[in-house]
Amino acid sequence: MTRGASRRDSRGARGLEGRYFTSERVLEAERTTLFRSCWLYAGPARSLRRPGDITTLDHGAESALLIRGEDGVLRGFHNHCRHRGARLCDEDARSLESGRLRCPYHAWTYDLAGALIGAPNMTGVRGFDAAEWGLVPLDLGVWDGLVFLRFGDGAESLEELFAPLAGRFTAWRIPELEVARETTYDVRANWKLVFQNYSECYHCPALHPALNRLTPYRDSENDLEKGPILGGPMRLARAGGTMSADGRRVAPPLGDISGDDLDRVHYFTIFPSLFLSVHPDYVLLHGLTPLAPDRTLIRCQWLFHPDAIAAPGFDPAPAVDFWDLTNRQDWEICQRTQRGVASAAFSPGPYADLESVVAAFDRNYLAAMRRVDDPTADPPHSREADR
Amino acid sequence: MTRGASRRDSRGARGLEGRYFTSERVLEAERTTLFRSCWLYAGPARSLRRPGDITTLDHGAESALLIRGEDGVLRGFHNHCRHRGARLCDEDARSLESGRLRCPYHAWTYDLAGALIGAPNMTGVRGFDAAEWGLVPLDLGVWDGLVFLRFGDGAESLEELFAPLAGRFTAWRIPELEVARETTYDVRANWKLVFQNYSECYHCPALHPALNRLTPYRDSENDLEKGPILGGPMRLARAGGTMSADGRRVAPPLGDISGDDLDRVHYFTIFPSLFLSVHPDYVLLHGLTPLAPDRTLIRCQWLFHPDAIAAPGFDPAPAVDFWDLTNRQDWEICQRTQRGVASAAFSPGPYADLESVVAAFDRNYLAAMRRVDDPTADPPHSREADR
Amino acid sequence: MTRGASRRDSRGARGLEGRYFTSERVLEAERTTLFRSCWLYAGPARSLRRPGDITTLDHGAESALLIRGEDGVLRGFHNHCRHRGARLCDEDARSLESGRLRCPYHAWTYDLAGALIGAPNMTGVRGFDAAEWGLVPLDLGVWDGLVFLRFGDGAESLEELFAPLAGRFTAWRIPELEVARETTYDVRANWKLVFQNYSECYHCPALHPALNRLTPYRDSENDLEKGPILGGPMRLARAGGTMSADGRRVAPPLGDISGDDLDRVHYFTIFPSLFLSVHPDYVLLHGLTPLAPDRTLIRCQWLFHPDAIAAPGFDPAPAVDFWDLTNRQDWEICQRTQRGVASAAFSPGPYADLESVVAAFDRNYLAAMRRVDDPTADPPHSREADR
Repeated sequence: MTRGASRRDSRGARGLEGRYFTSERVLEAERTTLFRSCWLYAGPARSLRRPGDITTLDHGAESALLIRGEDGVLRGFHNHCRHRGARLCDEDARSLESGRLRCPYHAWTYDLAGALIGAPNMTGVRGFDAAEWGLVPLDLGVWDGLVFLRFGDGAESLEELFAPLAGRFTAWRIPELEVARETTYDVRANWKLVFQNYSECYHCPALHPALNRLTPYRDSENDLEKGPILGGPMRLARAGGTMSADGRRVAPPLGDISGDDLDRVHYFTIFPSLFLSVHPDYVLLHGLTPLAPDRTLIRCQWLFHPDAIAAPGFDPAPAVDFWDLTNRQDWEICQRTQRGVASAAFSPGPYADLESVVAAFDRNYLAAMRRVDDPTADPPHSREADR
Repeated sequence: MTRGASRRDSRGARGLEGRYFTSERVLEAERTTLFRSCWLYAGPARSLRRPGDITTLDHGAESALLIRGEDGVLRGFHNHCRHRGARLCDEDARSLESGRLRCPYHAWTYDLAGALIGAPNMTGVRGFDAAEWGLVPLDLGVWDGLVFLRFGDGAESLEELFAPLAGRFTAWRIPELEVARETTYDVRANWKLVFQNYSECYHCPALHPALNRLTPYRDSENDLEKGPILGGPMRLARAGGTMSADGRRVAPPLGDISGDDLDRVHYFTIFPSLFLSVHPDYVLLHGLTPLAPDRTLIRCQWLFHPDAIAAPGFDPAPAVDFWDLTNRQDWEICQRTQRGVASAAFSPGPYADLESVVAAFDRNYLAAMRRVDDPTADPPHSREADR
Repeated sequence: MTRGASRRDSRGARGLEGRYFTSERVLEAERTTLFRSCWLYAGPARSLRRPGDITTLDHGAESALLIRGEDGVLRGFHNHCRHRGARLCDEDARSLESGRLRCPYHAWTYDLAGALIGAPNMTGVRGFDAAEWGLVPLDLGVWDGLVFLRFGDGAESLEELFAPLAGRFTAWRIPELEVARETTYDVRANWKLVFQNYSECYHCPALHPALNRLTPYRDSENDLEKGPILGGPMRLARAGGTMSADGRRVAPPLGDISGDDLDRVHYFTIFPSLFLSVHPDYVLLHGLTPLAPDRTLIRCQWLFHPDAIAAPGFDPAPAVDFWDLTNRQDWEICQRTQRGVASAAFSPGPYADLESVVAAFDRNYLAAMRRVDDPTADPPHSREADR
């Protein structure tokens, strides 16, 4: 294996202009285009394995319903009634034992496949046909046990998106894993600053001394330096270890992993909503949702094998605490960066070669914004991106 | 009397597009046009019956002063000093015993008819004439004891507005009534969602089981299905009752009411600021003020006859508690609807025939917005209404 | 000495339109032009007298660093790292004992003169030259011991700005003074309303009875009634007094002052960020920063001679309490005015002759806005000033 540092090259790139992190118009352009046309991470499919299991995912003004049908099929819908638009399910929805979904306003009722099966007093209403008023479906897909959905239209299939990682994590058997711990962070920084922060370990010596002892910052490779999925592995300094408070594993190695993978952590960003951190003994997921130009909601999930969770004495705290500390260090520096790039005097600086993935993120972001930018659309990105 | 349900017809209408409930620009257009040209409910005239009695009414950035003059005339003014613009009266103003209104900034002083009667150090100021600097008057009118005012210009007189209800509530002698209880609600929903909610009882079985027992939702008529005043009576299930926690009256029947009116409640919306709920034994008023696209201030007043209020053992709680519960159920569903219609995937659904008044509200609203829409004005509604 | 009142003439002027106090666009135009091209008050130079002393000044999205170098030179810089833009110093920064400034993100390090002296892993990065990546400098100047800075470009030197006051306060020896007390106020009013309020004593009889006893409101002169520096002296009613709770001095007269200056207070506004109130025994500074159209941060500093501060029994409370009370009365009336001028029905009233300096402030403000208004710039003021 080649040491990553020697291969990396930021090619003289500089960062994004400050307005990309501060402008309401840029976020509006991102919302109406990017976050509608891209696949967004929703959660592990295993959390919705029984018929009637349900969850919601909010994203800006949008809200999605994910429901496992009586037929075992997982479906996604917009979370509002077709009659007057009332939001159907609250965030704490977990299961529909009745097999139906009833709007609390006028009692319009849908089955688990989204069909309208009850609408009081609508018989005889001019032009009304119940078959036309089922829940609005959403694109939904599952990759390696992780559910993704799309609020608007998009050409790319989930398989096409994940082609660069096809088969890569088969040995970990991620679909079998369960969420052992979940934490949510409300970070006062633009979502892209959080992506950029995750995309390099150049900051690790100054910001994360504990992490840097476990995975020295130069011991990384970047398999993927182009497109919507970016990243690669880092080598653990200590064989048989993991990322945890004391560097020791908190569970047996996952699935059938072997060889180098027993001593590496794989870090990938899935544009524009997920960080996938695959450890020998657990998987960490960061799901991101922009709330404002300077505010991002980040949901962290620690996934373990159910056998490990069930084992006597199982305690994920060393892994959870380690990443919680690292997260907080990262959010703090992202917040400082948010405040700095808001200055009219800020101009993007040069990337180190160790930041080659950050430069790749920027290139992919700008390409994605251009791709969805239809000059006849309102608002066009090219104009809207200006503060 | 014909049962209302049989007469109703929503004529295949669908609701308003989501932007009408969420766009800052739509609210701005409503504020600069609709809420300036329409009569807005201010309060019962009886609360201002002595010379010097004063109250304020805020509406967005606007604030009105209502003052009973020494001559017994009730007048309305903009609540700011003509000199540097300081707001003159706070919200808790009740009475001006001095017979004058003095600005706390530079002591400019006005009489109760708004004339500038004192302005220190202004004598000899070039071009200054005190007669030109009285308080800015507002249009003000009283209908059936209820005060309405208008912040800007409008062609319609208050009598023309209320023509459809002329003489309708004479028997209740509303001008004699007094506010026995007042409550204010801060609702996270667009003001039009609150109007729509009040305009139908299709939601009563699912949302208000207690209310639906007192007035079964189909036992309604809609006398008025066109224009700025909409609504009609509902029949009480139990003769001699009222809308209250136990269904029993909390006071004797009002005025000279007789016949059907002893067993009916009359519900009318007065566009764009008042719900008028006339019960056999009391009158309930909901005054609405939009605070933001997704936020409405609602002031509820329960009016009783002073003889009832003075009677030993008078307790309005059963009426107040009943409507407070109903209000809270309504506000909660309006808030759910606000969140749902904000989705880009929301498209208006079909109205049931029982929602014919909601459809009539929508038609009147759109007509009112068009009426005030002068294409040379800035901002024109047609453009501004787009998100 | 001529009594000022007799000389004053507001020349029939009226105030500014309401939009100047309420519009987001006006503030944006002020920020992107006015507050970038004008000198802004930062603090007394004496607070930064040792090498390594450092402080920050925030203004909207901008943040400045002020650092006393090893060479004794005081310099100003934008407070962000040139690499990824992280804000370098927090508000509580006081001293850099290490003689260097290290960014917490990737450890880029600057010396006290702003040069980049350390950037890990940047050697060999294509096109990188450390000499190009020092901190971004700001214009900085010191007048009579007070530090001013400029976030953007401006033609005028600090000496040119202060020409009207050249030599005026030499006898007070302001550069020797130290901050004995500092208070910050968050006022819900536009910054220009606060300037206008400070610019006249016409309001003193009604609003400040205690102040008006110490300096009767007509006993003022206005030496300067044109340009960015406006104001003049007021005569103390009691010889040997000062502005304090009991009217007595709290410290010996400053420096070498003599004659009339022993019994006068000098009040000047330095457009657009400072009020300078020079008393016989102390100097009061109000530094203003707009936070929103209806919100201004005001920092008050009471400066005394270090000998007075060190004297046994020194107690600035009578001076501090007196102005704190006066400030609160002023902020309250500014807030009332903010609410009043927001009305669409507000039109500016006539100024009294005693408000001649307010009229002069308005003229200077409008001229300054026109001066920076380049019709090819975005956004042009002429259009942006409209709500």
